[in-house]
Amino acid sequence: MSVLEYMHTLGQQARAAGAVLAQTPTASKNAALVAMAEAMDAARPELMAANARDLEAALANGLDAAMLDRLRITDAGIDAMMQGLRQVAELADPVGEITDMNYRPSGIQIGKMRVPLGVIGIIYESRPNVTIDAASLCLKSGNAAILRGGSEATHSNQAIAACVTAGLQKAGLPAYAVQVVSTTDRQAVGHMIAMPEYVDVIVPRGGKGLIERISNDAKVPVIKHLDGNCHVYIDDAADVSKAINISINAKTRRYGVCNAMETLLVAQSRAAELLPEIAQHLQEFEVELRVCDKAYALIAESAGARVVMADKEDWFAEYLAPILAVKVVADMHEAIAHINHYGSHHTDAIVTENYTKARAFMAAVDSSSVMVNASTAFADGFEYGLGAEIGISTDKIHARGPVGLQGLTSQKYVVFGDGHTRS
Amino acid sequence: MSVLEYMHTLGQQARAAGAVLAQTPTASKNAALVAMAEAMDAARPELMAANARDLEAALANGLDAAMLDRLRITDAGIDAMMQGLRQVAELADPVGEITDMNYRPSGIQIGKMRVPLGVIGIIYESRPNVTIDAASLCLKSGNAAILRGGSEATHSNQAIAACVTAGLQKAGLPAYAVQVVSTTDRQAVGHMIAMPEYVDVIVPRGGKGLIERISNDAKVPVIKHLDGNCHVYIDDAADVSKAINISINAKTRRYGVCNAMETLLVAQSRAAELLPEIAQHLQEFEVELRVCDKAYALIAESAGARVVMADKEDWFAEYLAPILAVKVVADMHEAIAHINHYGSHHTDAIVTENYTKARAFMAAVDSSSVMVNASTAFADGFEYGLGAEIGISTDKIHARGPVGLQGLTSQKYVVFGDGHTRS
Repeated sequence: MSVLEYMHTLGQQARAAGAVLAQTPTASKNAALVAMAEAMDAARPELMAANARDLEAALANGLDAAMLDRLRITDAGIDAMMQGLRQVAELADPVGEITDMNYRPSGIQIGKMRVPLGVIGIIYESRPNVTIDAASLCLKSGNAAILRGGSEATHSNQAIAACVTAGLQKAGLPAYAVQVVSTTDRQAVGHMIAMPEYVDVIVPRGGKGLIERISNDAKVPVIKHLDGNCHVYIDDAADVSKAINISINAKTRRYGVCNAMETLLVAQSRAAELLPEIAQHLQEFEVELRVCDKAYALIAESAGARVVMADKEDWFAEYLAPILAVKVVADMHEAIAHINHYGSHHTDAIVTENYTKARAFMAAVDSSSVMVNASTAFADGFEYGLGAEIGISTDKIHARGPVGLQGLTSQKYVVFGDGHTRS
Repeated sequence: MSVLEYMHTLGQQARAAGAVLAQTPTASKNAALVAMAEAMDAARPELMAANARDLEAALANGLDAAMLDRLRITDAGIDAMMQGLRQVAELADPVGEITDMNYRPSGIQIGKMRVPLGVIGIIYESRPNVTIDAASLCLKSGNAAILRGGSEATHSNQAIAACVTAGLQKAGLPAYAVQVVSTTDRQAVGHMIAMPEYVDVIVPRGGKGLIERISNDAKVPVIKHLDGNCHVYIDDAADVSKAINISINAKTRRYGVCNAMETLLVAQSRAAELLPEIAQHLQEFEVELRVCDKAYALIAESAGARVVMADKEDWFAEYLAPILAVKVVADMHEAIAHINHYGSHHTDAIVTENYTKARAFMAAVDSSSVMVNASTAFADGFEYGLGAEIGISTDKIHARGPVGLQGLTSQKYVVFGDGHTRS
């Protein structure tokens, strides 16, 4: 069987399973999720053995320590995946929810019913736990899933897939509800994103290069997340301690995450007062500052060696590292213009006590999350109450911001009549 | 200037105008819509003259009577466009609506704010009134619009565009908020659908061929509507008069519309009782029936010459004509399977008095509108209370069913804190 034929077979099986899943009662989906967790618990030795094979190959191929770390499955990692499955089982089922029911002057009653998208293709890189995240969210939202993980995790992913399949079968659901692509042939991705007859939406998770390539070539809609170049703007009317705490938290809570602040903007009127103190705190975290000339004049001497002049590339940068760009701006309007021009429409925050400016910033910043007096670190499906997320969309179409179960569904119109005809 | 440069210029101007429109107060948008209507009223002679030029060229090019009819602007047509503008002015502004505001355990308060998509590209065929529909809906939803009408309507569309621009300017809004592509070069469409830096979504309106071509080549999301192959299923438990009235209305109210019934499915247990009567009514409307063998046996003799045997193509057909496919099915399950397989996921209805079957049909039919005891003819933005529609989406992503103002918007997350940081 060619790779194309193989992918079409997966597609057909997914389509058939999706039709069943769309009608599957909540309790059965939850039972499958719990059974998957139990299967994982029972399969710890097999999961570890499969993972050891991947790790060995990765070592032989010279993957670096960070990659090996992402690839590694530990007992605690299995616990976390099991907990994730049980948490998704506890989330409310989005499918079938009916909202906005109203009578129209014609006498018909109309509303919207939430329904699955159908078949979701997920393409991701090394972390094997994405297999469980994706499988559980797709299943709970009534969608069939075709999962294509990184080739370096292939044995781990197949071992996890065996637990997923066991859980599905124990609950009497179609085994093809979740399929993990078994070939490591790179053509598989090309076929998967170009079969709209079998796949309704693609969610790529990985580096920007991968996502851009997929978006360019896909023949189906892509829910995508490119960069997280997040900003905090400290306004003229900012409270001192809020400004300092939010800046430190947004930058230093974690560096390698998409919701970390990458550029700090400070209103000119407050720069002399606040920047030296913020710079001093960030120095304690060994954060390198790449700063505009006005900021340089204020902090270069006091803050020491880790302060350099920014160049234009820094305003676009998603460092994912202990580096922060800093710019002094004339006012909020310059801050908004900077964010909308250089930012990535992910998450941006203002620190202010001014009611009118908080409202204006909220309306004008064109990002998937806009915050007032809160750290960008909150941009996350769990923190937002979605329960879990398949990713954070920086797109505007369909889903924006953290994408949870609801983002994997659509709404159809439902119309109730009593023999109504249209005149 | 090349066509590419021209389209990029329109794109840049639209992007700039869109940033302004996103922040424009409701009252200013409404004032522009009303001013457009006044400008049209004052420009009746110019509109008629421009339209006369298009009609003359169309006649010379041998366009048929139906095409000429779609192209023609009458005084009543201008009245209707003016009324449309005023109706859109009266609709609630979707932009800025905040919903689902909740406190999270962390103390942040989170909700969703409705925001424009940005720049919308609309590609359509002969009817000049689409220029006004599209301009008004995009403006009210805070989006800039680039409109590309059919080349046969080019003078009419430019004359309408002049009124739109006059209205924008009178209300102090950017003239580039609505731009009508002035070149008839076909390359313009190819460029317009491949500039994601300037256009956020494409809405094509026209024949299936046009829409498929655009969907295939587009580098931006497309909100599309392919066919309307709508079904009415008469269930075992159908009420006689509802079954007859809905069948007749769904087929004969208008033939050339996407929400017209194209296939009638009848439960075997009711076929002998209902089909002859329905066939007789449809004969009075001179509707041709293309029927399965069971239906043929029931109605061929009594119903006369307009009954022929269906072939497989008929189950897929969107006739847009006084033709109806008719099939006798064993039960509701066969009806659902038929609809999901042969249908176009547009609008499908069941006629039944059975509560359990109504619920099951509602859940299982995978269409943008699913109805119980109501005519498919209701599938329409006005009837659904959207105020107006830019089209009916048969897609699942982003917008499904009639697309009104809300379908031209997205939602961003808004987070309110009091200096909250994430632990």
